[in-house]
Parts: sequence; structure tokens; C-alpha cells
Amino acid sequence: MSMIVDMLPLRVRYSDTDQMGTFYNSRPLEWFECARTELIRSKMGMSYAELEAKGFYLPVVEAHLEFHSGARYDDLLEITSKASFSSRARLHFDMLVTHSGSGKVCVRGFTVHAFTNRQGRPVRPPEWFCELFEAAALRNTAPPAES
Amino acid sequence: MSMIVDMLPLRVRYSDTDQMGTFYNSRPLEWFECARTELIRSKMGMSYAELEAKGFYLPVVEAHLEFHSGARYDDLLEITSKASFSSRARLHFDMLVTHSGSGKVCVRGFTVHAFTNRQGRPVRPPEWFCELFEAAALRNTAPPAES
Amino acid sequence: MSMIVDMLPLRVRYSDTDQMGTFYNSRPLEWFECARTELIRSKMGMSYAELEAKGFYLPVVEAHLEFHSGARYDDLLEITSKASFSSRARLHFDMLVTHSGSGKVCVRGFTVHAFTNRQGRPVRPPEWFCELFEAAALRNTAPPAES
Amino acid sequence: MSMIVDMLPLRVRYSDTDQMGTFYNSRPLEWFECARTELIRSKMGMSYAELEAKGFYLPVVEAHLEFHSGARYDDLLEITSKASFSSRARLHFDMLVTHSGSGKVCVRGFTVHAFTNRQGRPVRPPEWFCELFEAAALRNTAPPAES
Repeated sequence: MSMIVDMLPLRVRYSDTDQMGTFYNSRPLEWFECARTELIRSKMGMSYAELEAKGFYLPVVEAHLEFHSGARYDDLLEITSKASFSSRARLHFDMLVTHSGSGKVCVRGFTVHAFTNRQGRPVRPPEWFCELFEAAALRNTAPPAES
Repeated sequence: MSMIVDMLPLRVRYSDTDQMGTFYNSRPLEWFECARTELIRSKMGMSYAELEAKGFYLPVVEAHLEFHSGARYDDLLEITSKASFSSRARLHFDMLVTHSGSGKVCVRGFTVHAFTNRQGRPVRPPEWFCELFEAAALRNTAPPAES
Repeated sequence: MSMIVDMLPLRVRYSDTDQMGTFYNSRPLEWFECARTELIRSKMGMSYAELEAKGFYLPVVEAHLEFHSGARYDDLLEITSKASFSSRARLHFDMLVTHSGSGKVCVRGFTVHAFTNRQGRPVRPPEWFCELFEAAALRNTAPPAES
Repeated sequence: MSMIVDMLPLRVRYSDTDQMGTFYNSRPLEWFECARTELIRSKMGMSYAELEAKGFYLPVVEAHLEFHSGARYDDLLEITSKASFSSRARLHFDMLVTHSGSGKVCVRGFTVHAFTNRQGRPVRPPEWFCELFEAAALRNTAPPAES
């Protein structure tokens, strides 16, 4: 299965915290979105904004979160995302949030995305997107060239 | 000056709090929006959604906040809003957030709104809106009928 | 299995929307929190704030969301929550968000909560909480009295 | 007057947008917080988290926002912050949000912060903080060394 892997460093904002002293439980979904945005930009060489400009949308149709440990304001986290097609028209992002340095797991989860048009109707992913995806997946898994 | 006054009771959500134990400083702007929505609905007999459906938008062009006291999760607040035209094409909402019961002031502030079209260009407020506003202001300040 | 059912009407705020025109995907987790708060208050006769004041916390340890249809600014939704113990020390909230009136399903999901102390360590749910829960569940499922 | 200037590049998140297609009006207050955090870290050589760990807090007591132009999802912005003491115990942050590249002004504003203890009572800023501030301000305004 073709897969693209990326990692985004991200700091916990004060606005992410709640009175329990850790991040509020909905914030990881916002972090996942940041990680998806950067995976598409840095690995596929396009931006999600361009995809939308061309009339294709990737709304979340399913999301899952498991909370393993807290994180405090200003903690540096690493959001690792693994993108793959779970079916012909569904993108799946496997997500892992860890504490930078210790590697301690903070959140595990995933999101599933449908391809839709501007009106929200399911459509086939455009051919050029699939080709960019495959090319990125190939680069991503290629063994590093000998130096 | 014509003015419409309304009050919205509102509870502090857990998601409103931050690690200081009070609401995060940006939340009152969301509460102000809730109060404007309900003022327009309950006093003007229309919804802001309808205004947008007719192609008129009221983006915030200026906002001010003064923080007088904190509020905790689940505290019941009262958001008092006073709407008036500060010029021919600017709506001004004077806002006061108090603790229900004690009346202790929590936040004072205001927002100023321009009338724009869908593209964000300034437009004159539609005549029917101004008429609804004036009628609401008259009802609002009328002395209560004798019983 | 003992279960408490509650329903919270809730309007989509402007701040809930994103540029796709529907609510942003993390917002239902905030709505779920509002629904839990009101279920505990209205059915168990206590507030979650009191539970925390007594040193017990109910952090989310798992959350799941399925997105079935969008909802627009100012839409009136109904958040139905069903609370039950999924184990001796885990509370499970089954969640359903529907459009008021049409009943159209908007979001399905659940959250699982652990009992912890202020330091985040797992603890047994206090006896008095379990008793309040059982009493509420009994009232909740009792056939309505004949009139 | 001693002043520290810093600039933070920041991308508009999808979660920052609303159905008008630009950022929701409360988001700049969250961006301001990110900029303050990084100014303190990069210019003063400490973190705001450390300040809180030592028992000092800097809650916002006043905030002002002027909205000059919109910004879309994924737009790259520059948040310029200028910190100064507006009185013996009040920190003032002058804020400017511009579009990266064009330099077009997006938002102007400011926040005013009091020094308080953990209980929220006003306190004098600690001497060591003032010294770090002065040293940073001196470095900040020093003419660049000849190369």
C-alpha cells in the first residue's frame, strides 16, 4: 500500500489549554489538520488550498482519538502523519502525537477523508492528485541514496 | 440615538477555560457574536443568517475588550448588548458581561461592524434593515403599557 | 446496564463554521462537552464543577466521530447523550447530533472518560457518584406515571 | 522608552477560518499570544512558562483589534509585536499582522497585561524580569555591528 509519512513539530498554545492544565480534548483535531496541510505541501509539492481552488474538497468523515498523556502550554510536540488511500476514494491519515525529546506518546488517532465537490457530493479523486500521491509515496519509501 | 438592548444568559464552557482557570481572553468575542445573533433574532424579528442569505454581511472592523474579573467553568454569565448605528453604515455593539446573580462585571467591550457585500466591499445598509432596526428600537425604549 | 439519557438543544455559532460553510470538524467535541455538563446537572442533580471541586476529574481518554451531514451557522441541533459505565471506572457517553425538526443525523460519536484525581492518576469513582448515577438511571428508564 | 520588537511568521489554519472565508474575528488574539510567547523566548531568553512556574502571571487586562483586510486559509502572515512597559506594572504589546510578501496590513491591535500572582492579585513585576527586559531592549535597539 502506498503511504506518505511526514512529521510536524508543533508547540502547545496557551489557547490550547483548559483548566485541567493540559490541552483541551478537541485541539488534537486542529493539530492533525496542520499536519495534513504540511504533509501535502512538503511531500506532494502542492497545497491543500490549491486542491480546493480546483473544486475538490477533503472533508473529514470519521475521526478517532486516544489520549495517552497530557501536554502543557509551550510543550514541543511532534505530529507524525501517515497518509494512504483506504479505498478508491477515501484518504486515511494515521496520526501520532509524541513529546519531542522523550518521545512519550501523547495522542494516537486517525482521520478518514472523502473527496467531494464544492457542493459536498462525493467525487472520484482527480487523476493528477493520485499521480502526485503515488510519486510522493515512492520518494517517501525509497532507500536513501548511497553517499 | 436609536438603540436596541438585549441580554443573553450564557454558561462558560470547559472549552472556554485555559490553564489560568478562567476563560481564555479571546472567548468573549465568541460570546459577543452569540449575543448579536440573539439580539437580531429576538428584537428585530429576523436572523443574521437571513441577512447573509440576502447578500449583506456585517464583518467586525474593530473590537475592544476590558477584562474586569475572571469567570470559571459553568459560571452563568449575562451578556448585555446595545446596538446602535455609529454612522450611516456602521453598526456599533456596546457589550457588558456580568456574573449572573452578583452582577459583578466580568468584561466590558464593543465591536464595530461594516455593511459589506459577499465580496467584502462596503455597501449601504439595505433600507428594510434600517426600518426593522428603527422599529425594534422604538419597541425597545417604549415605556411598558399600563396593565 | 444502567443508562442516563439526555438531550441538549444547541445552535451552531458563527465561530463554529469554517470556510467550507459547515462546522469545523473539532467543534462536535465541544458540543459533546456541553451535553455532558447538562446531562450531569439535569439528570444527576449535581454539577461536573462540583465533582472537580471534590477532587475527581473525568478526562476524555478516547473519542470517536462520524460525520454524516453538515450544519450551517444558526442551525438548531439536538445533542442526545447516553451515559453508562463501560467498566467499573470508565464512563461512556454515546452521542448523536441531529438537526432539530428534520431529525437528520449530523454526527454520531462517543467519548470514554476515566476517573482521575487532580494529579491525573486513575482512581475509583466515588461511591456517592455511583449512587447518584444509579438513581438517575432508574428515574430515567421508569415508565411515565399514569395521569 | 525601552522596547523589544519581534516578528513571528504564522500560517492561517483551516480552523481559523469561518464561513465568510477569512479568519474568524477572535483568532488574532490567539495569534498575538503566540507572538508574545516567542518574543519572550527569543528576545528575553526565558519562557513565559517559566514566569508562571515562578508564580507570576501576565493576564490580558485590555485588548484592541482593528481589522484591515482578510486572510485566507494557508496564507502566510507576519505578526510583529512591540513590547514595552506602559507603567511600572503594566506590559503593553503593540501588534501588527501583515501579509507576508505584500506587506498588506491585515490586523492592528494591542494588548495590555498586568502582573499578578497565582491567585490573580496584582503584584510588582519581579526585578529579574525587568532586568531581562531592559537587557533585551538594549540588544534590540543596538545598531548592527559592522561586518
